[in-house]
Amino acid sequence: MSRPLQLDPQGRLRHLLSMDELPRDLIVSILDRAAEFSEAVSGPDKKLPNLRGRTIVNLFFEPSTRTRSTFEVAAKRLSADVINLQVSASSTTKGETLLDTLKTMEAMQADMFVIRHDASGAAHFFAEHAAPGVAILNAGDGRHAHPTQALLDLYTIRARKGDPAGLRVAIVGDVLHSRVARSDIHGLRILGCKDIRVVAPPTLVPAGIEHMGVRVFHSLDAGLDGVDVVMLLRLQKERMLGAFLPSAAEFHRDFGLTRERFARLKPDAVVMHPGPINRGVEISGDLAYSERSLILDQVANGILVRMAVMDMILESRESGIGNRESKGGGGGF
Amino acid sequence: MSRPLQLDPQGRLRHLLSMDELPRDLIVSILDRAAEFSEAVSGPDKKLPNLRGRTIVNLFFEPSTRTRSTFEVAAKRLSADVINLQVSASSTTKGETLLDTLKTMEAMQADMFVIRHDASGAAHFFAEHAAPGVAILNAGDGRHAHPTQALLDLYTIRARKGDPAGLRVAIVGDVLHSRVARSDIHGLRILGCKDIRVVAPPTLVPAGIEHMGVRVFHSLDAGLDGVDVVMLLRLQKERMLGAFLPSAAEFHRDFGLTRERFARLKPDAVVMHPGPINRGVEISGDLAYSERSLILDQVANGILVRMAVMDMILESRESGIGNRESKGGGGGF
Amino acid sequence: MSRPLQLDPQGRLRHLLSMDELPRDLIVSILDRAAEFSEAVSGPDKKLPNLRGRTIVNLFFEPSTRTRSTFEVAAKRLSADVINLQVSASSTTKGETLLDTLKTMEAMQADMFVIRHDASGAAHFFAEHAAPGVAILNAGDGRHAHPTQALLDLYTIRARKGDPAGLRVAIVGDVLHSRVARSDIHGLRILGCKDIRVVAPPTLVPAGIEHMGVRVFHSLDAGLDGVDVVMLLRLQKERMLGAFLPSAAEFHRDFGLTRERFARLKPDAVVMHPGPINRGVEISGDLAYSERSLILDQVANGILVRMAVMDMILESRESGIGNRESKGGGGGF
Repeated sequence: MSRPLQLDPQGRLRHLLSMDELPRDLIVSILDRAAEFSEAVSGPDKKLPNLRGRTIVNLFFEPSTRTRSTFEVAAKRLSADVINLQVSASSTTKGETLLDTLKTMEAMQADMFVIRHDASGAAHFFAEHAAPGVAILNAGDGRHAHPTQALLDLYTIRARKGDPAGLRVAIVGDVLHSRVARSDIHGLRILGCKDIRVVAPPTLVPAGIEHMGVRVFHSLDAGLDGVDVVMLLRLQKERMLGAFLPSAAEFHRDFGLTRERFARLKPDAVVMHPGPINRGVEISGDLAYSERSLILDQVANGILVRMAVMDMILESRESGIGNRESKGGGGGF
Repeated sequence: MSRPLQLDPQGRLRHLLSMDELPRDLIVSILDRAAEFSEAVSGPDKKLPNLRGRTIVNLFFEPSTRTRSTFEVAAKRLSADVINLQVSASSTTKGETLLDTLKTMEAMQADMFVIRHDASGAAHFFAEHAAPGVAILNAGDGRHAHPTQALLDLYTIRARKGDPAGLRVAIVGDVLHSRVARSDIHGLRILGCKDIRVVAPPTLVPAGIEHMGVRVFHSLDAGLDGVDVVMLLRLQKERMLGAFLPSAAEFHRDFGLTRERFARLKPDAVVMHPGPINRGVEISGDLAYSERSLILDQVANGILVRMAVMDMILESRESGIGNRESKGGGGGF
Repeated sequence: MSRPLQLDPQGRLRHLLSMDELPRDLIVSILDRAAEFSEAVSGPDKKLPNLRGRTIVNLFFEPSTRTRSTFEVAAKRLSADVINLQVSASSTTKGETLLDTLKTMEAMQADMFVIRHDASGAAHFFAEHAAPGVAILNAGDGRHAHPTQALLDLYTIRARKGDPAGLRVAIVGDVLHSRVARSDIHGLRILGCKDIRVVAPPTLVPAGIEHMGVRVFHSLDAGLDGVDVVMLLRLQKERMLGAFLPSAAEFHRDFGLTRERFARLKPDAVVMHPGPINRGVEISGDLAYSERSLILDQVANGILVRMAVMDMILESRESGIGNRESKGGGGGF
């Protein structure tokens, strides 16, 4: 289990690997820290000194410009130095060579690694083998987890709709292949959300997902009934032509958020999507930037939440090793 | 037209999209600001605090190391944070997905986008849809415009030859496909240059270019007669073998700046080229770094002019939104 | 010869191109400077102001993430701005276009170029043509030299085993294709090491290497007898299947550091490798991170040594041109 890895003996954040088993209070304190950053970076000079002189390595074994950029912006806002490394996963598939990569980068005295890898468990592997002074931040590992996405989704829901505990939330689309769905479900459950729905064709729902505390719907209209939040998942291009789905157009007809379906939602229901959207597949293009779409809020909040996670991890590390001025418990910066 | 987009209600620079319709005074003030920066960065520590904490995104849909580097150096000299994004144009050809890219990057609170795209009008499209707090700087869009190249060319001419109004200038080469030529012609005309010549084979001159206020020559020797400034254009590799030209060697014989032609120029005439040069095609290699070649001055001045444009755009934005300390009218830094 | 290029009239470091002909005192002062940096960067804020406002360009004509990263980290620790340029060597193979690349980047007022190129002599060519204010740092040129690797190896040996003059050192593996081996041999010789051995199959030893002051062994067991330091070389993948070697497995059997061979070394002998290692080829995987392996020390020390070289080069430049506050002779920072 990742709990002892993710937390230090005082229960503070040490690595961020997955949402499951993160304590409720810790998640809330991350969201609170992000909210504090929201005010701190509202002026033209958005730079805070918190991580000055620290080195953060973006170690991406899968290509990504979007997610990598958000981590890079977040780190630079905190005055960290950022090294971007795009590594071919093919040359490092074996655990041993992954380990060599980690050890080498550690020796360069990087303080934190932001890791994306197409193998589930890669971030966990890195955290298990990391030196005491080095933190691992999972930016997506295979189908397993994408915890900063879940945190930014929780932040976005809380900011617009209040406490998730009282909400009805539908997660729609390719749940089977989605690390975002897994992390969102864990996060919503930990924050007390009691009505989580998963809406997808049978081929795109993992067996046994009910055990995560969700209800499964194979009809979008039934699934969306009375929901407060619609969380659309991105449909990967390769699924559109594969064995899982007849076609993108058919997916849109049956599981896409069309104008008609949008009109039947509760008047204050909101729509979310981790991006980038496939217009006319998961969502009708003209809904993407409507007033009730939170898609761009998610991007903006992603910077804040990633700043919060980086800051809290390095804060607990450095108070642990006695090298950084104490900055008080939950937030002061 | 781009005028209302490029300027704010007080007539200050808001975006930089193209040279046409930029007021003369504004161009002069950009060149003056660049000249001030020239002194400020002459010491070993070339860093100025002007854009500290601002985020500038280099969003390049065409590959480029050279132009991208100059914008990156300019932004870092002003203490901005720079995010480099090389995006495949193939996945974003439709306006809608271009818009998604813009909106996503905006949501990360980038302050300015430096955009290069192979579609004419791309920068204009971005500026039309950009949020009020976001500036667009065109780093080349299709065959349309490359305004910072024109500004650095004007700066270079002014620094060496004085006011362009009294000069005879020849623009030589592939005018048809050249955004540089278009922007240079606009810029020279606005600064009052009355004798602009375009010298190219008939296949490489756009129809109706006389309406831009230039004279067309199909003979290089005639075109160069009595000129003060020779502006060579880069010949793209794909043109050398295409329908437009018989061969690179033939182009050099007829339209290249050979030693013989150079010797017949006025003794104080200067040579310019936006780079990278094709030695033995547009220019004889041994002339590239002669005392009368301004090619390297152009590169150096490109940093200064880009610093000036970035600084002036963000200055007018932030005085407009009341968030930045006033820095006085034309230059104080 | 590179001596007059590498040193200024006062004998200070001007470029770093190769180890041969570097004076002993200069090498020692680089290692001493690196040792000072080791203490300076031991806290959480590892940033020093020495190169604030200077621009360092990583100009890599060969792909590299690992070496490029170490130079980038070193430069950022000294507060320099770093521009990464990955250039295709194919488009710049001719000296003339290499020169254009150099002149263009110089004109952007870069202070130092870190250059890797697959042609031996490329760094030397750049240094010959560089403007007075510009420094060249060789990050590996063909089979010729890799001086910062040699400096970090010397630093690592000195830190663990003391003065190299009294040590027996074996360099094992593909010496023929190795710029690392050449630079290490020069460096060890200059520091007075009298017992340097080269251990390799006959196909992987350059003719006449004895003239560099080394003894050649074709048997690993004989070569390792009584050594204090084993320096393994990386075997390039393409050699494993080529005419030089029957197979990687056979190389490991005859020239790999197996557990058995390791057990027969002197009890305090240490193992080094420039990385990345091929597990089961040059070295048995379980030895890579043993207490007597210095492989990760090499990585860490590589940052320090590169910081030292950058700092000393720019220090001598700027005292030479009178623009930087004098910082005293050999070390003060």
